[in-house]
Amino acid sequence: MGLMAGAGTSNGASVNQSLEIAEIRAFFVGGRAVTVRDSPIAKVDNAGGIPVTFDQNGEYQVDQLYVQMIRLRRPRAKFPLLMWHGGGLTGVQWETTPDGRPGWQMYFLRAGHDVCVSDGIERGRATTPPPGVWDSAPVYMSKQWQWRHARIGTYDEQSRIYAPHPGTKFPSEAMDDFMKQISPAWPGNAALHAERYADLVKAIGPCVIICFSQSGNFGTEAAQRHPDLVKGLILIEPSGAPDATKRPPQVVAKIPTLYVWGDNLTGPLWENVLSASRTWYEALQQLAAPVEWVSLPERGITGNTHMMMMDRNSDQIADIVQLWMRKHGLVA
Amino acid sequence: MGLMAGAGTSNGASVNQSLEIAEIRAFFVGGRAVTVRDSPIAKVDNAGGIPVTFDQNGEYQVDQLYVQMIRLRRPRAKFPLLMWHGGGLTGVQWETTPDGRPGWQMYFLRAGHDVCVSDGIERGRATTPPPGVWDSAPVYMSKQWQWRHARIGTYDEQSRIYAPHPGTKFPSEAMDDFMKQISPAWPGNAALHAERYADLVKAIGPCVIICFSQSGNFGTEAAQRHPDLVKGLILIEPSGAPDATKRPPQVVAKIPTLYVWGDNLTGPLWENVLSASRTWYEALQQLAAPVEWVSLPERGITGNTHMMMMDRNSDQIADIVQLWMRKHGLVA
Repeated sequence: MGLMAGAGTSNGASVNQSLEIAEIRAFFVGGRAVTVRDSPIAKVDNAGGIPVTFDQNGEYQVDQLYVQMIRLRRPRAKFPLLMWHGGGLTGVQWETTPDGRPGWQMYFLRAGHDVCVSDGIERGRATTPPPGVWDSAPVYMSKQWQWRHARIGTYDEQSRIYAPHPGTKFPSEAMDDFMKQISPAWPGNAALHAERYADLVKAIGPCVIICFSQSGNFGTEAAQRHPDLVKGLILIEPSGAPDATKRPPQVVAKIPTLYVWGDNLTGPLWENVLSASRTWYEALQQLAAPVEWVSLPERGITGNTHMMMMDRNSDQIADIVQLWMRKHGLVA
Repeated sequence: MGLMAGAGTSNGASVNQSLEIAEIRAFFVGGRAVTVRDSPIAKVDNAGGIPVTFDQNGEYQVDQLYVQMIRLRRPRAKFPLLMWHGGGLTGVQWETTPDGRPGWQMYFLRAGHDVCVSDGIERGRATTPPPGVWDSAPVYMSKQWQWRHARIGTYDEQSRIYAPHPGTKFPSEAMDDFMKQISPAWPGNAALHAERYADLVKAIGPCVIICFSQSGNFGTEAAQRHPDLVKGLILIEPSGAPDATKRPPQVVAKIPTLYVWGDNLTGPLWENVLSASRTWYEALQQLAAPVEWVSLPERGITGNTHMMMMDRNSDQIADIVQLWMRKHGLVA
């Protein structure tokens, strides 16, 4: 923790201090009408012994994104902070850690930001449409897959033993609680996601975005589309990056951009992920863009997983993000 | 509004007053591990051009319920208020009305209650498991179905015209926004829902429950299972009621219970629904239980739909609930 000495108080708010909230409001962004035909008529017991007939044919609203906005009475941040979840996850990933500590939603509220936690289309409260509306079938990510993919540890198929990486910061005893927030994901929906997140930025106006993993792509895309509205872009281990030969980095070269990377970034997947972001980062650097690359292990902070907002030192990492926002004048 | 004169100030909180919040916390209740086998291996583009392989076989957590708890710094209510959504809905139904006014979540927070808005299993942020885990297939409720079922108006198949009932209080111009919160529902999950809601009551401890439509059944069931913990039960147009010949009403005869019914309760479905609740209500009355039956039209409040927490006079109905809670000493 040496390098972060004093960072524990950087957000300027005591954990026990109450929050003065002006408003909690939920809304949807986007959505379109589709008509379903030739669906079977269902007759079901509506739990009270009273059967209800469902003619499932008719109109539906689909492709909307859900947002819960929490506005402070006296925000110290200049712009609302949008928090975008990763693939197979929902807004829950920002709310509370699986072992029950306050998540980044509470951290950044206490640190003076209006916070918008969203569920992208297809996830959580954005709901899913009847079958056939989207082209792809959903994929499901098992505990084994998450454990390995999030770099929490190894899993042995034979012995069925989940072995955490030595020194992991993930609260691995709460892995089953983490799994409760895992949601189906439709791999064919990437373009729709990007579209809707850009709509969200338009709906909110000037804002700062924290995006993670899959939504890193949607954050960089939203910045490309609305460079005037995205006032800061925080990329927590983004799973991809724009191709600098196809998308001009000039467009986003004025946006303060922060990358944060955890530990154990080995293997072909992570090497590809790192390399794509590194290339984009260097293209921005050549334009003297206000872009920063934080490798936690290089700062002496070891053991962080892909799910660093849930790791035991999640507040320490949020401190890094908050200090960076302060440095760029995004929060007083 | 004659009968409700003065009720607009009954919650004792100005709409513009800020809220002092001690904590916003999300958690899951229940959940169990299942193992999926023989599922196909999916290879998908993780939106950044980097393909990810999903071996979908393995362990999942299923059957959990999601809760967002908002705790006030100085609650005036004695117990947390649990808000349970209806069939095909999520916790969003309590957050904000489809036309963007504050929902009952904000109303009851401002009225001094700690509030827990949940997504029952299968809905919203509770997520859904891989196919095959639950016995039934999901059903989908179209705009036509919701429009008629919620008693907002008539729909003509030929002309495709949605005609609101004269004097409806539903913000029918926002019907498409309402549809964005409609979620698939698994008709075979009633027993699982009831179990998990009862677990939620156990997890929270002494509480007051507002339940609606389908969850009316889960509220009465939770009260039967935990009559010591359920300190008040508010049933907004519950879709069913216990059979008084099979479940002893004595068990819940000390729990203050309020029924609230809207307008246009005609047709076989609603006559059955009313009759089931009326029989249970009368069984409670015979035991001199503190049970109250509010028919809004009989109080001169007309035009309310099934979705009265979203109707234009949603605050007026919340006032009735709040005054009733005050009468029973549940809020100072």
